[in-house]
Amino acid sequence: MSDLVLALDYGGTKLSAGIARTEAGPTVTSDGWLNLERVRKPVGADGTYDRATMLELARKLLAGRTPTAVGVSFGGPVDFPNGVVRLSHHVEGWEAQPLATQLQEAFGAPVRIDNDANAGALGEHAYGAGRGEESLLYITVSTGVGGGWILGGRVWRGADGMAGEFGHMTVEPSGPECVCGGRGCVEALASGPAMAKAASARLAADPGAGTVLRQVAGADEVTAVHLGEAAAAGDRLAAETLANGARAIGIAIGSAANLVNPGRFVVGGGVIKAGDAFWGPLTDAAHDNAMPEVDVDVVRARLGDDAPLWGAVKLAESALMGRRSVT
Amino acid sequence: MSDLVLALDYGGTKLSAGIARTEAGPTVTSDGWLNLERVRKPVGADGTYDRATMLELARKLLAGRTPTAVGVSFGGPVDFPNGVVRLSHHVEGWEAQPLATQLQEAFGAPVRIDNDANAGALGEHAYGAGRGEESLLYITVSTGVGGGWILGGRVWRGADGMAGEFGHMTVEPSGPECVCGGRGCVEALASGPAMAKAASARLAADPGAGTVLRQVAGADEVTAVHLGEAAAAGDRLAAETLANGARAIGIAIGSAANLVNPGRFVVGGGVIKAGDAFWGPLTDAAHDNAMPEVDVDVVRARLGDDAPLWGAVKLAESALMGRRSVT
Repeated sequence: MSDLVLALDYGGTKLSAGIARTEAGPTVTSDGWLNLERVRKPVGADGTYDRATMLELARKLLAGRTPTAVGVSFGGPVDFPNGVVRLSHHVEGWEAQPLATQLQEAFGAPVRIDNDANAGALGEHAYGAGRGEESLLYITVSTGVGGGWILGGRVWRGADGMAGEFGHMTVEPSGPECVCGGRGCVEALASGPAMAKAASARLAADPGAGTVLRQVAGADEVTAVHLGEAAAAGDRLAAETLANGARAIGIAIGSAANLVNPGRFVVGGGVIKAGDAFWGPLTDAAHDNAMPEVDVDVVRARLGDDAPLWGAVKLAESALMGRRSVT
Repeated sequence: MSDLVLALDYGGTKLSAGIARTEAGPTVTSDGWLNLERVRKPVGADGTYDRATMLELARKLLAGRTPTAVGVSFGGPVDFPNGVVRLSHHVEGWEAQPLATQLQEAFGAPVRIDNDANAGALGEHAYGAGRGEESLLYITVSTGVGGGWILGGRVWRGADGMAGEFGHMTVEPSGPECVCGGRGCVEALASGPAMAKAASARLAADPGAGTVLRQVAGADEVTAVHLGEAAAAGDRLAAETLANGARAIGIAIGSAANLVNPGRFVVGGGVIKAGDAFWGPLTDAAHDNAMPEVDVDVVRARLGDDAPLWGAVKLAESALMGRRSVT
C-alpha cells in the first residue's frame, strides 16, 4: 500500500511544498536522497505570505489527489501538541493561528506541525547528515542561530517546548547585547548579521584594513557572504571576523558536548557557505573546548535549505502512524 | 510480595550502605522520605577503601538476609551497560573493576551500577526535590562540579556515557585553567576549592581586606565553608567571592535552560551550605541568562549527601524489574 504525503515549509524567504510517496516509510534512494517532488515560491516583495498562497502551491502539486497526511515546518514557535502557530519570525499576522486545524479542513488529512529548527533536525536525522545517529544537535547559522535536538531517536522539545535554543547559550558574559536580552550569546557573536556588523565596525575604525573585503562588498553593506569571499581571497580582516564568530559557535558546541554528549553535531544554514575560514576555527574550538573523554563529531548539514521540508515529510509520516509522541 | 534491596554508595569521604523493603516499589512516606535503613563508614585516614570494606558493611546490615537486587552509586566514571567501574575519582586501584560481576557473586542478586552524579539525579528525581518532573538537571557543587540528567523520566547518559558534565561548560573563555584542559569552566570558577583559592589570592593581595574571613579561617587554609560563614557575618570579600562563583553557575544554568529546557534544576553539594550569599546570585544569574520565554525553575537539592544512596535504591529497583533501559 502506498501513501501520498504532503510536506509544507513556511520559511523566511520562500514557501515550499513537496509530495512524497511512502511505501512503509518514504522512499529513500541508495544515496539517501528522498524521492520528493517539490515546488517553491519566493515570499512576495512585500515580505508577506498568507495561508491562501501555500494552499494554492500545494493544490497545484497535488493535481487533484488527496494526501493521506500533512507535515509542516514553520519558521516560528509552534505549540506542537495542539498544532498552533504562536507567531511567525518573518511575517506579520500569524499570531495564534490554529494551522493544523486549518490544513486538516483544507486537505482532509491528519496534520503535524513543528518549528523549522526541529523540522530541520528531523530532516537531517532521517535523510541527511545525521542518519543512523541516536542523538544529535542540529544547528543552523544564518540571520539567527537556531537548533533542534534528536535524543533517543526522537525530537526533544523540552519542558516548555523551548529546547534547542543553541543560539542563546552564553559565550562571552560581558559580550555584545543580544535580541533575547542577554549578553554575548552565540547569536550575538556568530550570526551572519552579527559578523557583518563586527566587520563593518572594523572597516570604519581602520581605513587601511580589509582592502579585499571593501572590493568584494563594493557599495553594498557587508554581509557574511562577502566575508567568506574576501577571506578566501586572503583578506585578513574578513578571516579574523569569521574566525571570531566561528570560535563562539565552537565553544558553545564544546559546552553542549560536555553537557549532553550527543552522537553528532550537524551544522547548517547559509553562513557555513563562508567556507573553510569559518569551518576550520569552528571545529577547532569545538574540539578544544570539549573534555578529552568526550567525542565531538561535528559535520556539515547535507540537505541545505531543504532540511525543514524533509523534516516535514517525516512529520507527515508520524502523523500517518498516529503516534504523536514518536517525533 | 516484598523485596529487600541493597543500596551501596562508594563516595569520596565515606562508604554508605542501605537496605529498603520494596512493595511494588520502595516504601516512601507521605512527606517523601524513603524507609531506608543505613550504615556509614568514613573512608580511612589513608583515604583509601577496598572492596572488602563495603562487603563487610553490607553484610552487617543484611544480617544474614539475601537482597533481591543491588543498586550502586560509584564516585567515578562507570561503563553502565557492562557494570564496570572505569576508575575512582577518590581512590587508587579501581581501574577497570567489573564491580557488577563481583557484587553479583557476593550477594547472588542482579546488580546495577551508575556514577554518583546520575545516581544523585535518580535519587532526587524519585524521592527528593525533583519528584513529578519529567526532566531535570541535577547539579552538585563541592570539590568538583558535576551533573546528571533525567530526560523523559529516564537518566540520559549521552552517546558515550559522558552526558551531564555541567562543571565543564565554558563560562569565561579566557578564564582560569581547568583540570579538564579547558579554560573558564564552571568548575574552575565555582567549585569549593576554586572559590577558596580566589579568596586566598585576594587576601594575599590586599592585607586590609577580608577582616572577618581572616578571623573565621584562623590559621587554616580558607575553605568554601569559611566563605559562607564570613559572608553571613558581613565580610565583603567573602560575599563577592561567593557571588562570582555563584554567577558562573547561574550563567551556565541559563545556557543549559535555553539549550535543553528541562523542567527543573536541582542544585546540591556541600557548597550550597554557604547560604544566601551563594544562592541569591546563583538564581539571579540563572534567570537573567535564560531567555524570557524559558521557565527556569532552580531549587535546592533535598536529599543532601544521601542523594546517590537513594539513587542506588532506584537502580536496584530497576535491576529488579529487569529493564536496564528504564533508568
